[in-house]
Order: sequence, then C-alpha cells, then structure tokens
Amino acid sequence: MIRYFFLFVGLLFSLPVFAQTRTEVNFPDIPGYKTLKCDFHMHTVFSDGDVWPTVRVQEAWQEGLDAIAITDHIEYRPHAQNIEIEADHNRAFEIAEPLANQMGMILIAGSEITRKMPPGHLNALFVTNANLLERDSWWEACVEARDQGAFVFWDHPGWDDQQPDTVKWYQEHTRLLNAGILKGIEVYNGHDFYPEALKWAEEKRLTIMCNSGLHAPESMDYTNGEHRPMTLVFATEKSKGAIKQALKDRRTVAYFDEQLVGDKQYLGPLFFGSIQIENDGIGLENHQIKKLQVHNSSDVDFQLKQRQPSVGFSCPDEVVLKAHKTVFIDLEGTSDEVKNMDQLRLFYGVTNLTMLTGKPLPVNIDIANH
Amino acid sequence: MIRYFFLFVGLLFSLPVFAQTRTEVNFPDIPGYKTLKCDFHMHTVFSDGDVWPTVRVQEAWQEGLDAIAITDHIEYRPHAQNIEIEADHNRAFEIAEPLANQMGMILIAGSEITRKMPPGHLNALFVTNANLLERDSWWEACVEARDQGAFVFWDHPGWDDQQPDTVKWYQEHTRLLNAGILKGIEVYNGHDFYPEALKWAEEKRLTIMCNSGLHAPESMDYTNGEHRPMTLVFATEKSKGAIKQALKDRRTVAYFDEQLVGDKQYLGPLFFGSIQIENDGIGLENHQIKKLQVHNSSDVDFQLKQRQPSVGFSCPDEVVLKAHKTVFIDLEGTSDEVKNMDQLRLFYGVTNLTMLTGKPLPVNIDIANH
Amino acid sequence: MIRYFFLFVGLLFSLPVFAQTRTEVNFPDIPGYKTLKCDFHMHTVFSDGDVWPTVRVQEAWQEGLDAIAITDHIEYRPHAQNIEIEADHNRAFEIAEPLANQMGMILIAGSEITRKMPPGHLNALFVTNANLLERDSWWEACVEARDQGAFVFWDHPGWDDQQPDTVKWYQEHTRLLNAGILKGIEVYNGHDFYPEALKWAEEKRLTIMCNSGLHAPESMDYTNGEHRPMTLVFATEKSKGAIKQALKDRRTVAYFDEQLVGDKQYLGPLFFGSIQIENDGIGLENHQIKKLQVHNSSDVDFQLKQRQPSVGFSCPDEVVLKAHKTVFIDLEGTSDEVKNMDQLRLFYGVTNLTMLTGKPLPVNIDIANH
Amino acid sequence: MIRYFFLFVGLLFSLPVFAQTRTEVNFPDIPGYKTLKCDFHMHTVFSDGDVWPTVRVQEAWQEGLDAIAITDHIEYRPHAQNIEIEADHNRAFEIAEPLANQMGMILIAGSEITRKMPPGHLNALFVTNANLLERDSWWEACVEARDQGAFVFWDHPGWDDQQPDTVKWYQEHTRLLNAGILKGIEVYNGHDFYPEALKWAEEKRLTIMCNSGLHAPESMDYTNGEHRPMTLVFATEKSKGAIKQALKDRRTVAYFDEQLVGDKQYLGPLFFGSIQIENDGIGLENHQIKKLQVHNSSDVDFQLKQRQPSVGFSCPDEVVLKAHKTVFIDLEGTSDEVKNMDQLRLFYGVTNLTMLTGKPLPVNIDIANH
Repeated sequence: MIRYFFLFVGLLFSLPVFAQTRTEVNFPDIPGYKTLKCDFHMHTVFSDGDVWPTVRVQEAWQEGLDAIAITDHIEYRPHAQNIEIEADHNRAFEIAEPLANQMGMILIAGSEITRKMPPGHLNALFVTNANLLERDSWWEACVEARDQGAFVFWDHPGWDDQQPDTVKWYQEHTRLLNAGILKGIEVYNGHDFYPEALKWAEEKRLTIMCNSGLHAPESMDYTNGEHRPMTLVFATEKSKGAIKQALKDRRTVAYFDEQLVGDKQYLGPLFFGSIQIENDGIGLENHQIKKLQVHNSSDVDFQLKQRQPSVGFSCPDEVVLKAHKTVFIDLEGTSDEVKNMDQLRLFYGVTNLTMLTGKPLPVNIDIANH
Repeated sequence: MIRYFFLFVGLLFSLPVFAQTRTEVNFPDIPGYKTLKCDFHMHTVFSDGDVWPTVRVQEAWQEGLDAIAITDHIEYRPHAQNIEIEADHNRAFEIAEPLANQMGMILIAGSEITRKMPPGHLNALFVTNANLLERDSWWEACVEARDQGAFVFWDHPGWDDQQPDTVKWYQEHTRLLNAGILKGIEVYNGHDFYPEALKWAEEKRLTIMCNSGLHAPESMDYTNGEHRPMTLVFATEKSKGAIKQALKDRRTVAYFDEQLVGDKQYLGPLFFGSIQIENDGIGLENHQIKKLQVHNSSDVDFQLKQRQPSVGFSCPDEVVLKAHKTVFIDLEGTSDEVKNMDQLRLFYGVTNLTMLTGKPLPVNIDIANH
Repeated sequence: MIRYFFLFVGLLFSLPVFAQTRTEVNFPDIPGYKTLKCDFHMHTVFSDGDVWPTVRVQEAWQEGLDAIAITDHIEYRPHAQNIEIEADHNRAFEIAEPLANQMGMILIAGSEITRKMPPGHLNALFVTNANLLERDSWWEACVEARDQGAFVFWDHPGWDDQQPDTVKWYQEHTRLLNAGILKGIEVYNGHDFYPEALKWAEEKRLTIMCNSGLHAPESMDYTNGEHRPMTLVFATEKSKGAIKQALKDRRTVAYFDEQLVGDKQYLGPLFFGSIQIENDGIGLENHQIKKLQVHNSSDVDFQLKQRQPSVGFSCPDEVVLKAHKTVFIDLEGTSDEVKNMDQLRLFYGVTNLTMLTGKPLPVNIDIANH
Repeated sequence: MIRYFFLFVGLLFSLPVFAQTRTEVNFPDIPGYKTLKCDFHMHTVFSDGDVWPTVRVQEAWQEGLDAIAITDHIEYRPHAQNIEIEADHNRAFEIAEPLANQMGMILIAGSEITRKMPPGHLNALFVTNANLLERDSWWEACVEARDQGAFVFWDHPGWDDQQPDTVKWYQEHTRLLNAGILKGIEVYNGHDFYPEALKWAEEKRLTIMCNSGLHAPESMDYTNGEHRPMTLVFATEKSKGAIKQALKDRRTVAYFDEQLVGDKQYLGPLFFGSIQIENDGIGLENHQIKKLQVHNSSDVDFQLKQRQPSVGFSCPDEVVLKAHKTVFIDLEGTSDEVKNMDQLRLFYGVTNLTMLTGKPLPVNIDIANH
C-alpha cells in the first residue's frame, strides 16, 4: 500500500456544521473568586479512549465546563497497533488546543502515569513535555512531573481493580506526599465516590478532585440529562495560571450527582449565593402560618434537614429547595413572643453538601419579622 | 521513542461498564418481511470521523438499529498524520466486527469512494477487500466494487459543496447506471433531503437510501431526542444476505425527521400495521357525534388531511395520530341514511408519508357501523 | 339578585376544543383476562374536590385508565355554602356519565362513607342511589350500601389523621367483615403505602385496592410524568359487570410508583407477558461471555436480584430491565459441561414485584443453549 | 334531603399537602420597571370553568405568574343548576383571595361582560362589585364598570364563534372607545393570535393584552411544557395599584408561544437585558474566524435574521439564541481594515419579537474589537 495524503487536491470538505449549544452549569461565584467548572481526567484514541481529542473540547464546551485536561495513559496504549505509535505523548493536546482556543475553553496539558498499585494511577497536570514521563521507574516519572512543575494527584484511589477489598494508603503515597509531589486526590471518579479519600484529603491536606475519567463519548457514560462529575475551582480569574494556583491552594469542591463535597469555607458561600428569600419580611404572629418563599438558582436540589428547633415558631423538619425553582417553607407561630422578635432564624443542615469532616453543612436562614 | 505495547504486563483494565440500554425503533413488520432499521453511511477515526469504530456499533445498538455499514473514505484520510497510515482500509471493519457479533448487530463492510463531481461520492457496501478500491481512476474503483459484488449508491447527490447551485445528473452517472454499478441513491443524508434524488429513484429504478453520514459522536449531530436518519429495509430475515437482496430488490423506505418516503407498496402496510381502531363499531346516526379512537403504535406522528368528503357523515379536515398515543376522530352524522350504512369510510392523505411520486400516501379508514 | 339562567339566548359557546391525547398504560393482558387500569377513589367540587366531575373523566382518559369511580364524601361537603346544597349525592355521577360514555370510559357510581375511626372512611362502589347512604349511623349506611349490592372497601387504613401512631384493625372492621360488607382494602392511597393493609388483605382475603383519592387536578398531585396510582383489575371483558365480578374475586394488583403488589398468580403472568428474550438461543461454552438481550414492553422497570447461582455459568447479581428498553444480561460459562446443557436457567427475584407475603416475586428465566 | 354542613364535628381533614414548586418565568426587569407576568382572563366553576377558584391561584403560582384576574362570565353560568345560584358574582374572588394573599400572588377582581357581537365579550378588571354589572343593557354594564374605576378590554376580538368570516371593528367599539371605557384589547387569547387587534392597538392606542381565557385545568390546555399565554406588565412595583397604572399607560407586551409582541420601547430592553456577550473583545483580523459567544438568559429562543451586511466582516444570515443556552456567532474578517476597527456591529432583526407595526424588532449588537 502506498503512502498518500490528499489524492485529489480539489476536494472541498466543509461538511455542514450543526449549531452547537452550551448549557451553562449554574453555581454562583463566591467572594473573591470565580467558580470555574473543570474536569481534569479524560482519554482519547491516543491511549484507550474512544474519541478524537477535539471531541473532548466540544463535549466540555457543550456541557458548560470552563477547563479540562486530556490525560492519556503514558504506559497503556492499546490502540498502538492502529494509531501511529511514533505519535508522541503530547500529540492529543496539540490536536485539541487550537479548537479550545477558538472556543474559549482552557485546555491543560496532562498525562496519566499508569502503574500497578502502589502507587496506582496518578494524573500530572500542567506538564511541559509528556514524553519525558515515559520511564521504567514510577518514581522517576513522578519526579520528572514535579520537575516540570506539574500538579500531581492520585486517581480513583479505591478503584476495584486495584483495591478490590480495602482502600489502603501505602507507604509509597507517603513517600510521594513527603517529597512534595502528591498534591491532590480524586474523591470521585466516573461513577464512584471514595469516602476514604475524603478523609485523607482532610488529614493530609490534599486538594479534592472530582473527575469523569471518560473513555467513551460523554453521552454514553452520562445519560438522561445526568451531569458529568466536575471539580469546582475557585480561581481569581479564568486562566491556566489561576487554576494552577487554586489547585495548589486547595480551593476546590467536588460536584457529582446531587452532591457537593468540600471545605465549608466554600460550601457556605455556594449555598447562600444560590438561594434567595422572596419575602421582604414575614410578620409572623402566634397561631399564624406564614409562607417563606425561597428560590434556588443553582443546578442542585438542596436537601435541608432541621438541626434544632427555632425559637417562637415551628418549621418543617425536611425541605427540598429544588434547583431553579421556588418553594415554600411554612412557618407557624407557636408563642406570643414571636410577634415581637425582629428576626426569625431557621436551623438546618444541608444533607447533600458534605464538609471535609463528612458531615452536612449547617446553615442558619434568617428572615426579618416585620 | 521506543515501540512498546504493554509496558506493565500486570495491568488489569476492566473499567466499570455502565449498563447500556437500547431504545427500539417502532415500526411494524409488513407481510412477508421483517422491517430492519439500517444506516449505511458513517465514518471513524480511520478516515475523517471522530470516533473509534466500536463506538459506531454501540451507538447503533442503543438507538435501535439492526444493521450498519462503516464506510470510511478511501481517498480522504486527514488523520493520516496521526493514525497508522499502513493501516489498511479494512481495519475499521475488523476492529468493530467482534463487538457487533457479540451485540447481535449486523455490520456490513463498506467504503466511500470519494471523488470530485462527477461522479461525486459513492458508497460501496458488502465489499470483500476495501484496499482494492484504492485506484487512480474512479471508474476502475467502481468496477472493482461491482466485481466484488458490492451494492453501490450515490451519496448526498445534492451536497452543497459539490452541487452548490443546481442538483444535476451527469453522464457519468448514466454510465454507472448502464454498467449495472449504480443501484441506489441517498434521498436523505445527515440533515438534508434531496427531492431530485427521489425523482431519479423513481425514474431510474434506484434503491432509496437514507443515512446519517456521521462523523461526530451520534449524540452531537442528533440532539434532544431527535432520531438519526435510517433506511428501513424489508428483508426476509435479519441477515446480511437478506439485506443485500432487499437492497437489490429496492425494498426500502427512507425514515428521517417525521417523514417516511418510499414506494406506496411499503408505506401502506407500515401505516396500517401501525394504527389500531379501538372501537368495536361506531353505530352512528344522523345529528350524532361519535368518537373514533385511534391508537398509533409507531414512532411517527401521522399527519392526516382529508382527501374527499365521506358519505353520510363529516369528520375533521386534519387529524394528527400522535406516535404512541390514542386520539379521537369525531364523526358527525349528516344524513338519515347513515344509520343504515354497514360501514363508514374516511378518506385521508398522510402528508408526511410521501410516495415516489412526491405525493402523500392516500389511505381509506373503514369502520363498521353497528 | 334575580334568578336567571340564559340571559342571552343567542350566545353560541363552542369554545375551541384542543386535541386531547391518551397515553396508554402498558401492561399485558394475562391468560383468561383483560388487564384493566382503574382508579376507584376521587373527589369533585360536589364534596371537597377542586374540579368539575367531567374533568375526572377527561384526566382518566388521557392517563390511560379504563374505569374510574367518583366517590364524593357523603358526610363532608365543605363547598356546601357555594354549591347548590339541594344537589343530591348522585349529581356528580350524572354530570360525568354522558362524557364517559362518549369517550368509552367506564364510570362507576360511588360514595365515600366518611366517618371517624373506627371505622374511618369506606368507599362503596356500584351504589344505585347514593342519597340513601346519608344516615346518622355508619353501620346503617354500610348495610344500605350492601343492600344496594355495593362493593365496599376501607380507604387509606393507615391515614395519619385517623391513625397517627399505630395502624390498627378495630372490632368494627371485624363486624363489617363478618357481615359480608367489607370486601376490599386500600394498600395504597395518594402517595402512601400501608404494609399492614397488605397483611390484612392476605389474612382476611380482602381485595387489594390502590387509588389516587384525588382532590386537586390530577397534574397537581402527580407531577413530572409520575403516574397516578391505579388498581389493575383482571376482568373477563371491559364492562362494569366484569369489573364488579373481578373485585369480588380478588383479581387485582396494586400499581404505584415503580411497584406492583398482589397475588403471585397475577404478578407472574404480568412479568412474563412483559419481557421478551431477543436471542434465539445462546450457545454458551466455558470461558465465554454471551449477551442475553431482554426487552421489557411494560411501563415498569423490573429490578432483578439473583436468588441462587445458576449451574454452569454466572450472571449478574443485579439487573434492571428498563421499561420499554432492551438491555443485556451477560452470561459467562464457568464449567465445561455448560456447552452440553440444552437449557440455561437464571434464578432471580423481582424486588419491585411484591407478593401478598411481602416478598419479591421469584422468577426463573430459561434460555435455550444452542 | 336535609340541609347540613358538618355532620361529624370531630372530623379532621388535613389531607397531606404535597410540596408545590414554582417555575419562574425568566424575563429581565427593564429600566424603571419590574416585569410582572400576568394573566387577566380565566374562569371557574362559578361560570363555565371546570375548577374551584383556589386552583387558579395555585396553578398561577406554580407557573411563575405574579398576578391574575378571575373573570367569570356575568351572563353565562351553565353550572347554575348545580352551583348555588344565589352565589353572587364576587364569590369566586372571595374564595380565592385568602390563598392568593398567603402565596404572595396578586389577585385582581374581574368579570367578563358576555354579549353577542357587537360588542362581544369584554373583561372588566379591578371591579369593586361585580354584581352591579348584571344589567339588561350591555352599555349600562360597561358604564357601571367604568364608574367602578375598572379597566375594560375587548376579549378575543376575532373569535370564530362571533366573527367567523371577517374580523371587524364595530361602531359599538368606537362608542366604547370614545366614552373612555375601552382601554385594551386581547391580541392573543387561548391559542389564537389576532393580527387585526394588533393593528387596532397601535391605531387606537389600546393596551395590548394576552391571556389564557382558561376553562379547563391549565395543564389540559397547555401540555408538554408549553407555557400559557401571559401579559408582561412593566410596573413600578408588584402591587395592584402599579399594575392598574401600567395597564392605563399601555406598558405591556404579549408573550405567547415563542413570540413577544409589543411596543419597541419595551421589546428592546427585554432583548438586551436577556443576552450577554461572553467575550471580552474579539480581536478580529482579515481572513480570520472568531467566535462570538452569546448567552440568552430568557425563556424565549431569539430568532435573529441579518438586516444588512456588517462592515469589514461577515456573520451568519440566521442565528438562533436558544433560551438559557450559550451559542456561537462566527465572525469572519473580510477586509484588512477590520483589524483597525475599535468596534464591530452586527445588524439583525429578531423575527419573533414583533413591534406594533407588525415588523421584527431591529437590534444592533456591538462588540469591542481588541
């Protein structure tokens, strides 16, 4: 078979491009930071993924992401029989980058260092030359990543194939941590949550990561309007540098299913930035029922459960603040003093907003009583 | 860079497979034939497509297809810088076939002979060795396809890039037709319908084809529950041989958007096999209104428009038989004789079921009047 | 204010009627019986409901029901200030019946005997004159219902307002049972399931009932595509008489949420009538994986859980047969003998098909192994 | 039959109330005014509607409305046989008002003066005593409405039943106009648009009204997520008084299907308040393509069609700014000067935003070119 490229120079290939639409992911910015939606783990045909690198950019734009990293495996390339094996490990990034720039997406160069447990799989973000990560020794690969200034995190630490029975922290991970190489950990990958990883993130001060790890086209793994997992990054601006700094500073929250998991200093502003009390004041008296109207402008249903009784009135034990909806919370006056109280306070926990401690975020909702 | 394949033999890669579901496409079988849902035109990374060949099988299974052909371009392989260029033209088929067999999908070997107009692009199905289609002369490529027993059809004959101003039949197409090579024609490709192609299909006795011509992941081109275009093939059984025979015998109907286009000998049974009158009889008398209940078990809304008045009663000028729903058709007695009529006949045309002549399928709906 | 009726005779009021569509509820008929979809408990403005009686017929037709009973409260008519209080208790039925006949819906005359606990609320179906149920004594009202040939069942036996702490069977219920008056019991009403009622249905041979008890327009209580609860009735034909006989013979299954609850003699045929194995045979050998394709044509996702291991092969511990979808069940040969077995048997329980005993329906799925 | 009310005093009727959710209607406020979503025409069982008055409040709250008027017919009460006929014409309002107050909805007292054509049907809003509108003479009824300070508008002026062949303005309407009684006109009612009414609104300076005219439960007339028609009212605050003033001042826009119809002084701010350019600047040069990203936060897809070519670059002839989505507009540099232009201007018309003249709203979209 001969090598050829364009047999017929005259061919024009402007196949019709159908209108693409982007569905924004709705979370508020928080004081001092933009809330960027990111996915730092995915594959293409250049390792064991099923799509061309540009597809990862298009998917991510359509799904409302701000930044992604393509992180093909260094050591596992099952398509090597079919893909140009001389293709170097930077190729997927180079193919996707022009499209990312045109679409206003941030594309971060990355690689997955793919080893047996320990240490298992590690993603290196912001690598400058992925080819240099191809080493016999996993330790040398990790050192190389660090020397390139990469941000390194442990992928799916509880993955069944590598930790079928227990989820264990090995001395190799301690070594990586002590060497200043290991900086983050996936508490969620694909469709799986790892509670142990959350505990380690708190104890060892690792950055919380939450990624898809996609191999198939996105719509095959997340169907029926289900959103892909993402890492919310609180950055000073939408730029690679600001994301890198935010990851180093542990300014992230995991967003998967109907859950947000992270430090309460970020969860609180996300919650209060999302809800709006529609009443000007409530003017509650004893033996009255007044309806508090609360709107939730975020994409997540907030599941409220009462932590402690309110003074002077009762309110429902459980409330769901539906995403993009307004709902009622009925307040019923239970004492004569209530009419003299300037402010009413409701004590809830948000059971699907989980702090590093594993506990629900406590929130106090105040409403003027005039 | 060294050539390697599995650097670490011990790696296990059974990434979790999420449950896949298939949504059946609902059309009835017709007397003597199974109604197979097929798409005979699509691409992979082995030409200018964006997905690995196995994705085409998975997509098609999920979307309710029975058979597909992967038809990568012979003469246009823009990924050749990145894909192993020694990979021969049969490679995509070979990669996808084991999965197709496991999933019970029929995968047909195909190629797109990709030339300037005339003759433009031609798909060859049931090729035995795609590599032999790589010729300098398009004529020789077509003769080779025929000699391999391939079924050859003209792709997107009115494609803007090749026929921007008019849609023209060239003498080269006559030559292909006379040589017994050209057997079919796409009346629909991607998102475009070609009325001229429908006329030629009738005049020149070509088989009607209706295909996606996918490059991107399917869900990027057909969004919001929109179905991909498909060729309905009326075959004696679900097998490659029966499909090939059906294509030769012109037993197809094009299904795109909310349209069915083809020979009335197939449209009629599709329509009447899809609807069910729920009333046992109607018992209509003058000055009465009785409600005919009609269920449509197919995936298409049937748009009815009255062709001529009924005898003894009136009925709506327009009715939509919604897909998978039951609706009413109100009959109103307008003469005293109606109560003595054994049978009532409604005269409609189905405006979205188009015959080869370009006209709506006429249907007479009869209902016993007891 | 003067009494008037039509002040201006010439007024024409044919306000446009928009096309209504009916969404069928999909369950198979079972051997010997049609599977009728029924709701035997709902209210109108003639007691404490919010809609005109005709709305109940229109809603029910649109939602795929075959038969309903309007069962306004005898003793509770809070709209009496506003509704013509001389209106007798048969009025709602009389208003709705002509529309029901025109639409082919079965409308059953009913009343809710509405008393304090015990005996609480009781629905009487097939009453001939509801006005005669208006008695001081609940016992006399019940005897009157029986004397009219009514089918009487206990409504929402565990209703919080009447049984807040426990769900208790009173001696009054024993009295009704022994007198041949009490024949059925709601195991589900509105949005609540009463497990105690299921136990009583088995012990005391009461007919299982599952009803909405609607007051608001249906779409306010069952939102986002959620179906209303219904009683599946296995009747020899679609007629009032056949429904009455089926209720007496306890030929019913409760259908609510994604649950079916009833006697296994009905659950089994419902399950096996809903699923279809797509493979002709499987031809499994040791160390092979073969994919069984199973289609579920019913409206309910069937949740399968393995009861015991199969011989010669393994299969998934859990499978969801999605409603109106086809899914795979992977079978993996685990012994050399499997290739010689004529038939493979899978042992599952359907965790959302609950028998009178409260246990999941066991099902054995057989597949020819050629 | 005896008159009774509560036969059993001890009955508790706190039937479970299921959580209601409100879906906000998304349009921006405009400078100086709040954008209130209103429906000023609907019926209850107190005339020929199918629901209890409270249902109208609940529906409207759920559907994101701020204010409604219940406008039962004065002269047409077909349920009078069944409804307490002594009930006066203020009764529906009195029943619904406490719930409206509790839910924070504005409920406006109204009546439909229901006469043969001419003058046909007229709605009177803000009536103080509907009973006084019950007159033999339509003129006297209208004068009474005016004397109560009511805002009177002509309902469905092109209604088939009253104007089957032509849509005609009668001298009676001129009389009402000249007397300062007729102030508004429905350009849309139910599912019908009346272009003649739009013309009259402009010529005669009538306020544009757009209402549902509901009789059935709302979800029966507007299915599959279709929104009900509404009158957008630009009011200084959310209050009855501010709405009344806004209606007098003709500060309204009709919102039906995917259309907004009204004065350009309101359409313009609605459009520009809904869209957001995501790019900081575009930096376009000749022979380049740059992607403008535009987000539309309103509920309406904006259909753009180019009015005239831009200077220095080309852009698509047609663009759809999908509701709640972000889309691209590709700009292609076509002259060398473009790189020196500080600002790029796109000239579009919004074909589904219709001015009083019946023409599409022209919009110029400017983007900094750095």
